Amino acid sequence: MANASRDPILLTPGPLTTALSTKAAMLRDWGSWDSNFNAVTARVRERLLAIVNGQSTHVCVPLQGSCTFAVEAAVNTLVPRDGHLLVLVNGAYGHRLAKLAGLMGRRVSVHEGPEDQAIRSGDVARLLAADASIGHVAVIHCETSTGILNPLAEIAREVARQGRKLIVDAMSSFAAVPIDAHATPFDALVASSGKCIEGPPGVGFVFARRSTLEGCAGHSTSLSLDLYDQWQYMEKTTQWRYTPPTHVVVALAAALEAFEAEGGQQARLARYTRNYEVLVRGMAELGFRVFLAPSIQAPIIVTFHAPADARYSFRDFYDRVRDKGFILYPGKLTKVETFRVGCIGAIGPDEMRHAVNAVRDTLAEMGIRDAQPRERASKAA
Amino acid sequence: MANASRDPILLTPGPLTTALSTKAAMLRDWGSWDSNFNAVTARVRERLLAIVNGQSTHVCVPLQGSCTFAVEAAVNTLVPRDGHLLVLVNGAYGHRLAKLAGLMGRRVSVHEGPEDQAIRSGDVARLLAADASIGHVAVIHCETSTGILNPLAEIAREVARQGRKLIVDAMSSFAAVPIDAHATPFDALVASSGKCIEGPPGVGFVFARRSTLEGCAGHSTSLSLDLYDQWQYMEKTTQWRYTPPTHVVVALAAALEAFEAEGGQQARLARYTRNYEVLVRGMAELGFRVFLAPSIQAPIIVTFHAPADARYSFRDFYDRVRDKGFILYPGKLTKVETFRVGCIGAIGPDEMRHAVNAVRDTLAEMGIRDAQPRERASKAA
Repeated sequence: MANASRDPILLTPGPLTTALSTKAAMLRDWGSWDSNFNAVTARVRERLLAIVNGQSTHVCVPLQGSCTFAVEAAVNTLVPRDGHLLVLVNGAYGHRLAKLAGLMGRRVSVHEGPEDQAIRSGDVARLLAADASIGHVAVIHCETSTGILNPLAEIAREVARQGRKLIVDAMSSFAAVPIDAHATPFDALVASSGKCIEGPPGVGFVFARRSTLEGCAGHSTSLSLDLYDQWQYMEKTTQWRYTPPTHVVVALAAALEAFEAEGGQQARLARYTRNYEVLVRGMAELGFRVFLAPSIQAPIIVTFHAPADARYSFRDFYDRVRDKGFILYPGKLTKVETFRVGCIGAIGPDEMRHAVNAVRDTLAEMGIRDAQPRERASKAA
Repeated sequence: MANASRDPILLTPGPLTTALSTKAAMLRDWGSWDSNFNAVTARVRERLLAIVNGQSTHVCVPLQGSCTFAVEAAVNTLVPRDGHLLVLVNGAYGHRLAKLAGLMGRRVSVHEGPEDQAIRSGDVARLLAADASIGHVAVIHCETSTGILNPLAEIAREVARQGRKLIVDAMSSFAAVPIDAHATPFDALVASSGKCIEGPPGVGFVFARRSTLEGCAGHSTSLSLDLYDQWQYMEKTTQWRYTPPTHVVVALAAALEAFEAEGGQQARLARYTRNYEVLVRGMAELGFRVFLAPSIQAPIIVTFHAPADARYSFRDFYDRVRDKGFILYPGKLTKVETFRVGCIGAIGPDEMRHAVNAVRDTLAEMGIRDAQPRERASKAA
């Protein structure tokens, strides 16, 4: 890297660029049994829960590990062993959720739609009406594989109307896109420390409807991923059931302070939206084209088509932009060559402008005069 | 706390006191897809594997989450779905291992011995000879609930002699107590970032025999905890399968540098042994008595009997010692009142002397003139 003494800017779906105050919180060691640390945990749980307005209906259960661990824990804890889960899929994270539910032995049905189109609540209505054995529905709020935003509120209302339970992977939307537990009924909504709350990765958390979770004892086939047990132990002792990543937890507490100081979810969404606008406008000027229609695009992570120019290779492009101080992200689509750029983290429009400039310089170095993709009207499916 | 601007010394089984250089490594953000970060992961895996001399026979597979997650992953990945696991138990962590194996649906047999006595390899020989259906044996190397060291080498030789596979929870012994994969045959040995390697908690790792792991595809009923998948993905891509706790990983890399600079496992064991000796001698002078016989006591964590004096309560004792800057740990025995003091972490004999002095001052404050336990000859079982 040109300047190895400075951190690169992470334009990825996470881990993100975090504030120095967040990282500096990790300069202390904490005893995981100590009341001082447990007070931090309690504050973190309360503050996270408030972000989804869930204080009167839901509980926040944190879990060690990556995002996928928390999603797996939510499914294993909420869906009874003989339950039937409908997974709504329009990207890689939906497929992953269906896979983990099947591996743990649950009956799984998959409804798959095209990657460039949002899930339709009408389809959900039809599928639930046709199969009374489906007790639970799972959906990805913002599908990180493209950046698409699924219509959570509509889907949640339909699932509730038909008396089923809803599990939401809100990993990359939580704390940026508005989610209100009163307006949008869900039984479990899963997020993590390393996304839009701008903490370090290492802790997931599940907002579970208290009345639902109370009935989930004995569902989980995994001890580590049993959210009911984790919740009960934490309520009883104030402690984590197994060793928590203490440094990550205190950094998450610092990240929550920064989040509140900034003005909460609305302010964060406004900043990410500015980041997104600067990025998309700048990239369009270079000829890049976004994969999704703007109406279904969340200002979280943007999928761009790869340039058609034969001199383009993602590896070379990535390395050159990285050496200028910006970390991009590969695409995750099988049928179209793409790459992704995140708009989230402790960064603002200035960083996005610098990133676009670095991309411009990189194209020039590679001899690419126009970043137009191969087919002007290419589709994902 | 008297001086809140200073970290307390953690005399616990982990999280531990870590070196400032280890914590300072967390002041950077890393992209989890980036080759710079993946080079850190590769170095960490290599260095960890070298500590058990496993380079030619084993692979190191790291896993997000706490110690228990990694133990559960080892069991779920190694033991086939129709396998039969014998768990050797002489403390809480043995019981936990048996519980998680049963929850995931494996057939489990438990051999339980007294908490104050080491597991006998003769018992293992007899149990394996009597039941050919037992394909796997699991044992805790240093049972943190008391601090007892089980005779791993003897047990491993017996399990190998009878052609069964061995899973070892070496959480609190790894990097301090010598373990050599050539001399001590094991199929999986599980440890973590937050113990004697003196990193922050948040990552576990499993040293798995390559030839064993190669046959473990499709065993795991958990996607997140599938070590085979985790290993294959990492070998293929150099990346973690799901988002790693990047800050914890780079801090672990820094902790490994400090470990090597100190002189590796032998030097670490020598320092912990000095810590242990200073602690036990000083506490004995105050009247405290250790729970275990010295011959089976690892210099990792020491269980002390609670004083008989009616003015003693652990909560009060703990709080007063904590306010002087030292975090002790509660006991984990059901039949005898005890507390525990760790000898591990980035601390030396000076810190142990200060801790004993703080305990002396605390007893004086509480009006306890002698810390003798209730029954001079009390037994655990």
